[in-house]
Amino acid sequence: VIRDTVLANNTRNVLILLADDGGFELGAYLNKICQTPNIDALVKRGVIFNNAFTSVSSCSPSRASLLTGTPSHQNGMYGLHHGVHHFNSFDNITSLPNKLSEIGVYTGIIGKKHVGPRDVYRFDFEQTEENNNVNQVGRNITYMKLLARDFLAEANKQNKPFFLLVGFHDPHRCGHSHPEWGPFCERFGSGEPGTGRIPDWTPWYYQWDEVQLPYHVQDTEAARRDVAAQYTTMSRLDQGVALILKEIEAAGHNDNTLVIYTSDNGIPFPSGRTNLYDPGLREPLIMSSPEPNARKNEASGAMVSLLDIAPTVLDWFGVKEEQEMSNDIWGEGEPRSLLPILEKEPKPSESDVVFASQTHHEVTMYYPMRAVRSRRYKLIHNLNYGMPFPIDQDLYVSPTFQDILNRTRSKQPLPWYKTLKQYYYRPQWELYDLRADPLELKNLHGKPSVEAAESSLRDRLRAWQRRSRDPWLCAPGAVLERAECRALDNGLSHFLH
Amino acid sequence: VIRDTVLANNTRNVLILLADDGGFELGAYLNKICQTPNIDALVKRGVIFNNAFTSVSSCSPSRASLLTGTPSHQNGMYGLHHGVHHFNSFDNITSLPNKLSEIGVYTGIIGKKHVGPRDVYRFDFEQTEENNNVNQVGRNITYMKLLARDFLAEANKQNKPFFLLVGFHDPHRCGHSHPEWGPFCERFGSGEPGTGRIPDWTPWYYQWDEVQLPYHVQDTEAARRDVAAQYTTMSRLDQGVALILKEIEAAGHNDNTLVIYTSDNGIPFPSGRTNLYDPGLREPLIMSSPEPNARKNEASGAMVSLLDIAPTVLDWFGVKEEQEMSNDIWGEGEPRSLLPILEKEPKPSESDVVFASQTHHEVTMYYPMRAVRSRRYKLIHNLNYGMPFPIDQDLYVSPTFQDILNRTRSKQPLPWYKTLKQYYYRPQWELYDLRADPLELKNLHGKPSVEAAESSLRDRLRAWQRRSRDPWLCAPGAVLERAECRALDNGLSHFLH
Ligand SMILES: [Ca+2]
Ligand SMILES: [Ca+2]
Ligand SMILES: [Mg+2]
Ligand SMILES: [Mg+2]
Repeated sequence: VIRDTVLANNTRNVLILLADDGGFELGAYLNKICQTPNIDALVKRGVIFNNAFTSVSSCSPSRASLLTGTPSHQNGMYGLHHGVHHFNSFDNITSLPNKLSEIGVYTGIIGKKHVGPRDVYRFDFEQTEENNNVNQVGRNITYMKLLARDFLAEANKQNKPFFLLVGFHDPHRCGHSHPEWGPFCERFGSGEPGTGRIPDWTPWYYQWDEVQLPYHVQDTEAARRDVAAQYTTMSRLDQGVALILKEIEAAGHNDNTLVIYTSDNGIPFPSGRTNLYDPGLREPLIMSSPEPNARKNEASGAMVSLLDIAPTVLDWFGVKEEQEMSNDIWGEGEPRSLLPILEKEPKPSESDVVFASQTHHEVTMYYPMRAVRSRRYKLIHNLNYGMPFPIDQDLYVSPTFQDILNRTRSKQPLPWYKTLKQYYYRPQWELYDLRADPLELKNLHGKPSVEAAESSLRDRLRAWQRRSRDPWLCAPGAVLERAECRALDNGLSHFLH
Repeated sequence: VIRDTVLANNTRNVLILLADDGGFELGAYLNKICQTPNIDALVKRGVIFNNAFTSVSSCSPSRASLLTGTPSHQNGMYGLHHGVHHFNSFDNITSLPNKLSEIGVYTGIIGKKHVGPRDVYRFDFEQTEENNNVNQVGRNITYMKLLARDFLAEANKQNKPFFLLVGFHDPHRCGHSHPEWGPFCERFGSGEPGTGRIPDWTPWYYQWDEVQLPYHVQDTEAARRDVAAQYTTMSRLDQGVALILKEIEAAGHNDNTLVIYTSDNGIPFPSGRTNLYDPGLREPLIMSSPEPNARKNEASGAMVSLLDIAPTVLDWFGVKEEQEMSNDIWGEGEPRSLLPILEKEPKPSESDVVFASQTHHEVTMYYPMRAVRSRRYKLIHNLNYGMPFPIDQDLYVSPTFQDILNRTRSKQPLPWYKTLKQYYYRPQWELYDLRADPLELKNLHGKPSVEAAESSLRDRLRAWQRRSRDPWLCAPGAVLERAECRALDNGLSHFLH
């Protein structure tokens, strides 16, 4: 039945353009300095989401969540996939590429993959860091364009609908992995002496004193130069998006391809990636549908999660999510297909929420957090709050973080919205009123004025953890035993049912 | 060259009899109540070790360490393998079965396996919990005997030397997984009404008031009854050992088989399994070599690690460890073959040490510890010391732990050597003088009287972590970046080089 449905719709395709650690350095999201004309142009063809959130602010867990519709604690990708971290989704998880390939869609990935095991995430066409240099396949936009051309030619030859994920490695940092190319690999293929040249890339450069500084980055020359380097990398990503879209057009699929632009996690600056504060959680999301009744050049205020991408793609291909994936994720209205939003803005409600779950990033960075965010409030549960918030290698060596460390050590002025100590040490529960306090600085946990709101959010968070079978449901004060939380009497709070 | 060596020695075999959570409930180790005549008899044919230690007190990590010669932080098995825990060794790790199979040894496992991925731990003959009920294959000694017979017949038929690992599931608890069989599965196949009958097992029962209580278990009726149930399970294990040894004899291999009896980790009582205190770390170890000049009925005081088993088995088969395993574990004298000890007791030295490394047990139980133990001292580094020591599901539901909880809650007398609070909350560093304080109750960390000893142990622990490429080398106060520890300034101590 499904196969027939898809074959009957064999001119319906999906292209996901996925940035790596990308944020709101986009004209479309009102950054007035960083120029991204090509991504901006996509908005003219679709809907830009102002309330889109990842469920986890870390590469592999976010990609696994995107491709399965399940939070990281449910699919097993508790942290990074590569090297000594070695996290893997469970063998019985169903991913989008496996499901789509099974029903006759030609599936492909170009660029960063960063998930496993191989059998759970199997694309028909794979050109990734597993068989290429990650910078070539993820940042050399000329090479990526040619790979996309190959993929599309094969899809056309096989006369199959396609699902293509282009995993740009920009604007990920590279000071930890490839410091020779600059903090954001902004010199890789830029044509500067000794850097090589990516033929299709015209690097754009920015003055450090003119960048539009996010509120969670300190206002210093070092940090501003870091942001300026990130902007240059955005020019490679933006021009790469244009090249891929041109390939889609040239292959004859402009009018039958659902295009999605988003990013896996927050930008690699303090309070961004690896955090569940808004700079870590909020994501750009632009969706362009070729359907005749689809909205064009409109903004949506719907509260959406990147967990919704999997059911959206299934819906697009006519696959009934509740029948067709084994992940057992459906219920209570989430995740859900976003296709209806592309036709009509839903009515906003104060009860709209998204959920988040983070456990590891690097294997040594154990700091499980669970969060629920409504339009007004965010509640974060920090499970390992007796220890300092961990810092990843990549952030550690960044000019921005080194500047914070150096200024803190030498007691120089640090024009930042927090202190390093505040950043490291977090309470078990954090509750913010995002309307009054968008910077998430004033913890309202336990305040009588917000008691009803907090208790309702806590109940919803807990119900979600239970529904998604979170192994950390009872931590840190109780043991999960036969679906019940049983108290440890270790002095820490927990839930008992 | 290697293949020739092995074929020339094709009457040299290895049998490992591995208990699950087994301790010193053995006549041979001076338990005067628990009767284990068959394991005791093995000592008459070999050497009993009084200073043998696991490198990690958790099932999968210990088994992975045993089969690779590498600590868990080096082979990737940071915690339990099964279910939501989902830890796996790295794909490039070389295991004993893979290496031995490659050189022409017929390899087999009967009983509990609990390691992965499959390609890293591949036995020619596998009858484990992966294709059987774990109790049938690990506790039904009649069934296990018949499987061993099949394995040996095949080895003889192929005229190959063999390596057989018999992974008994006794005396592991089963109150979490199969409570219907009693806290230690002591009713499984016992012949009591409704329990079925294992033909070859004559269960032995013990009075709760006569058990020989370990110092780390409280002296209450509930705990003593728990220990009595454990003893009954030991009778199944002990009789199973006899059956397997009889099969070896019947197959004609009594005179050419190296027999090793040991256990993966400490007993499942407080301070045992999941702990690096001696009840978690010390293991029974009996080795019987058929060589003419081998020691018989002797005790060894050598400080040995279960990490030494892999090089011992390689040595037995004539494989040069430094050439033949890719794990890159060799250097500084550890791990090393124990075969020389089976001929001659080495000279004891105060500088003899063993190392330990524990990170997870269940995936939610993050409590990394690193330790070094000499004959006199033990130094433990607790990396996540800001949080309480975690309790596994299996221990949690045990009569012993429930008794501790209930007595603590109701403020009844608790005749235990610690309080629950002391058990949960541990300092970053623990240093014990085991001669003066074998119960590890008096932390000497930082005391001027032991400064030289502590500093020397810390240096050796650190050198081992570096040698074995421990990802936690710099935790919790620094970030590991390009082989250096770089300070986080989070207020926690760390090493900088
Ligand atoms: Ca990322
Ligand atoms: Ca065990
Ligand atoms: Mg698996
Ligand atoms: Mg792997």
